Amino acid sequence: MTEIEDIADTEDEALDRRRVSAILDAVAAGDAGLLTDLLEPLHAADIADLLEQLDPSDRREVLRLYSGEIDGEILSEIDESIREEVIENLPADVLAEAVRELDTDDVVDILEDLEEPQQEIILSALEDADRVAVEQALSYPDYSAGRLMQREVVVAPEHWTVGEAIDHLRGAEWLPDQFYHVILVDPRMKPRGYVTLGRMLSSRRDIALRDLMEDSFRTVRATEEEADVAYIFTQYHLISLPVVDENDRLVGVITIDDAMTVLDEEHEEDMLRMAGVGDEASLSDSVAEAAKGRAVWLFVNLLTAILASLVIDLFADTIDQMVALAVLMPIVASMGGNAGTQTMTVAVRALATRDLTAQNALRIVRREIAVGAINGMAFGLVMALVAGFWFGVPMLAGVIGLAMVLTLVAAALGGIVIPMALERFDIDPALASGPFVTTVTDVVGFFAFLGLASWLLL
Amino acid sequence: MTEIEDIADTEDEALDRRRVSAILDAVAAGDAGLLTDLLEPLHAADIADLLEQLDPSDRREVLRLYSGEIDGEILSEIDESIREEVIENLPADVLAEAVRELDTDDVVDILEDLEEPQQEIILSALEDADRVAVEQALSYPDYSAGRLMQREVVVAPEHWTVGEAIDHLRGAEWLPDQFYHVILVDPRMKPRGYVTLGRMLSSRRDIALRDLMEDSFRTVRATEEEADVAYIFTQYHLISLPVVDENDRLVGVITIDDAMTVLDEEHEEDMLRMAGVGDEASLSDSVAEAAKGRAVWLFVNLLTAILASLVIDLFADTIDQMVALAVLMPIVASMGGNAGTQTMTVAVRALATRDLTAQNALRIVRREIAVGAINGMAFGLVMALVAGFWFGVPMLAGVIGLAMVLTLVAAALGGIVIPMALERFDIDPALASGPFVTTVTDVVGFFAFLGLASWLLL
Repeated sequence: MTEIEDIADTEDEALDRRRVSAILDAVAAGDAGLLTDLLEPLHAADIADLLEQLDPSDRREVLRLYSGEIDGEILSEIDESIREEVIENLPADVLAEAVRELDTDDVVDILEDLEEPQQEIILSALEDADRVAVEQALSYPDYSAGRLMQREVVVAPEHWTVGEAIDHLRGAEWLPDQFYHVILVDPRMKPRGYVTLGRMLSSRRDIALRDLMEDSFRTVRATEEEADVAYIFTQYHLISLPVVDENDRLVGVITIDDAMTVLDEEHEEDMLRMAGVGDEASLSDSVAEAAKGRAVWLFVNLLTAILASLVIDLFADTIDQMVALAVLMPIVASMGGNAGTQTMTVAVRALATRDLTAQNALRIVRREIAVGAINGMAFGLVMALVAGFWFGVPMLAGVIGLAMVLTLVAAALGGIVIPMALERFDIDPALASGPFVTTVTDVVGFFAFLGLASWLLL
Repeated sequence: MTEIEDIADTEDEALDRRRVSAILDAVAAGDAGLLTDLLEPLHAADIADLLEQLDPSDRREVLRLYSGEIDGEILSEIDESIREEVIENLPADVLAEAVRELDTDDVVDILEDLEEPQQEIILSALEDADRVAVEQALSYPDYSAGRLMQREVVVAPEHWTVGEAIDHLRGAEWLPDQFYHVILVDPRMKPRGYVTLGRMLSSRRDIALRDLMEDSFRTVRATEEEADVAYIFTQYHLISLPVVDENDRLVGVITIDDAMTVLDEEHEEDMLRMAGVGDEASLSDSVAEAAKGRAVWLFVNLLTAILASLVIDLFADTIDQMVALAVLMPIVASMGGNAGTQTMTVAVRALATRDLTAQNALRIVRREIAVGAINGMAFGLVMALVAGFWFGVPMLAGVIGLAMVLTLVAAALGGIVIPMALERFDIDPALASGPFVTTVTDVVGFFAFLGLASWLLL
């Protein structure tokens, strides 16, 4: 048995280094049979990861050799950055079959990110009933609960017993892949509560479903934002959340796996936005896309930096008389920038988790200022000693120490107040806080240090 | 009906501003009855959030007035930063009762963060069987699957039918709150697969469970790290994951709600670590704790900044001859720092999601360098024009433009290579990349700009 056959046969179904290089060998040899043996045991999510990690020419080759096996599950696991490319490379019949086997919420998820002509191809591949369902879902706003939900719900009238519900489920022609509750509805399809499958299974047939309802029951409007949906799942430890329309009628259900994906995406978005990386950033983005996405933030930062330079320019004469100031001034600005980022990150995170509210805002602002003052004094003292020994000018030591205190307090204040103000005005604090906070810390840092120097030293 | 009674009665069970201020009024008036009416309709998670948001004296007062109603669910929702304080303020009998009603995994979660004496209090409040279970769970490493799992599992022998399983569940004296699968085990308790409750409920009584098993089935070792557990849940869209010991025998199960909590915590940790905020940071931390946590990073940053200053000091004579260099040099360092942070954030995130692998590393490094070069040239050109017009020295324009290209390429290289190298050496890239990347961008930025200036301008 060759080594490659050995890998294909192995019970360990992971996408490890050995398997990847075996796959690349099979691709290079154009051996479709071997490639299929190697990919077959993998989970759809791992096959999608593999496609993302390959360079474009290898990816095309894998798709060509393996196209017959690309199913709906793989398609919905593929990152949006390469989805369009993959869809273009699939034969029409493979694509149609792949799409047809998906739940409607997964089809919606795929369609959202595609251009018009590709959307048409996929919509026309669907059966009529599914197409209508998908088009209805697409009529909800982007990133809303309506887009996220699956329309296939398992419901029962309030007055049913366990036995009636079980008989109904056994007789059902089709059931969703994922369901964890039976939702009890009134005759007008308004949800009244739900029963977990575990409780149903462990109860006698003659028990009324109504008596098994969970204490805590929530629904969400279809127009609600998906970030709020993710919050509700995390906060209340839900497994599924029924979705209602504007008349409170049941229109679908969101399950926790979708909420977890949203949580993960929201988080990635916050992290990348705080670092000034565009929303769409992914490792599969091209050089041009990545450069363009990051240039926006770099441009904003350039304006901030030029503003800081204008402050320095005000004190050009002072620096001319004492070049040590030029040597030390970046330290003050750098410490301010870091302290500001620390506070800002805590604030952005606390706003996202709703831990920072009108209730505790004032106390947290006071706390941050106190933290800034304490660390300002500690590091001001350290830097005063360093500068004193370095340049032998006692007054210079005093100036840098004092500048450090002022800058770190300003950084703390800016770091907490700016995200809160942005949130109040409905601007995403993760996206917009950075430039403002940096401006505050740079300007205050240079102004305090050079201003104090020109006043006290010359 | 007074306004406060009106709020207490309202159907909307949210922790909004009106309710919070009504609660504070009730606390100020020392009115336990009214406070209870206001808190009663809230979910345990919201009551815990309220306690976190109150200042310590109000919190003590709420606990005093409401202590009888503090149950296990509230206790396990409370953030670890104030949990110790809350436990100290609860009467022993209330605490004992609260702890006794929890599943063992929740008790473990509470115990982990407590000091020895408080652990003893809680352990002694448990019934014998539960205490043994909790102590066994605590014998697994911190942040392992064994700590996360619940030991209460619902299993069935492989050869059972749906009917036998349902009868068994109906006869069971006790079942876990949360279970979504019945795990099929062999006689030696080795898991062979699982059946979703939905499929069981919708199948005839005479069907063999074996025929209903899910295609995809994974288990995890009890010693596996919880971050890996969260990855498995996200990657494979699992709802529950059986946990096995070193002999592959079933010892527990992890459910998706716990995995979602871990995912959320891991994210928070990455975000805070990248910003240099200590691990334990929470809004309820005291000023001293917060100041101390952040001082570590500020100290590292101080060393970096001093290193950068030493570079500047090398060129003190050059600056002395042309003060415009002091005005412009922070721009180069700032742009480098930002570009480095962008790349580093993308890299840290991609490492966490396992999108950046040995397979595509070289391609991604090349991409980042290309992005750095493109943006370096673009912003180098812009700054050359700005500096040229500002100071009227054409050669200065050339120097800053060239320095910008070099710095942004170095930032890109450092931003991608440093996190990858740290990961290779098992050091958390989220925690340690920042200082290294900043050092690279600062040192290269100042060196390139001032070095080119002293070479070309003087």
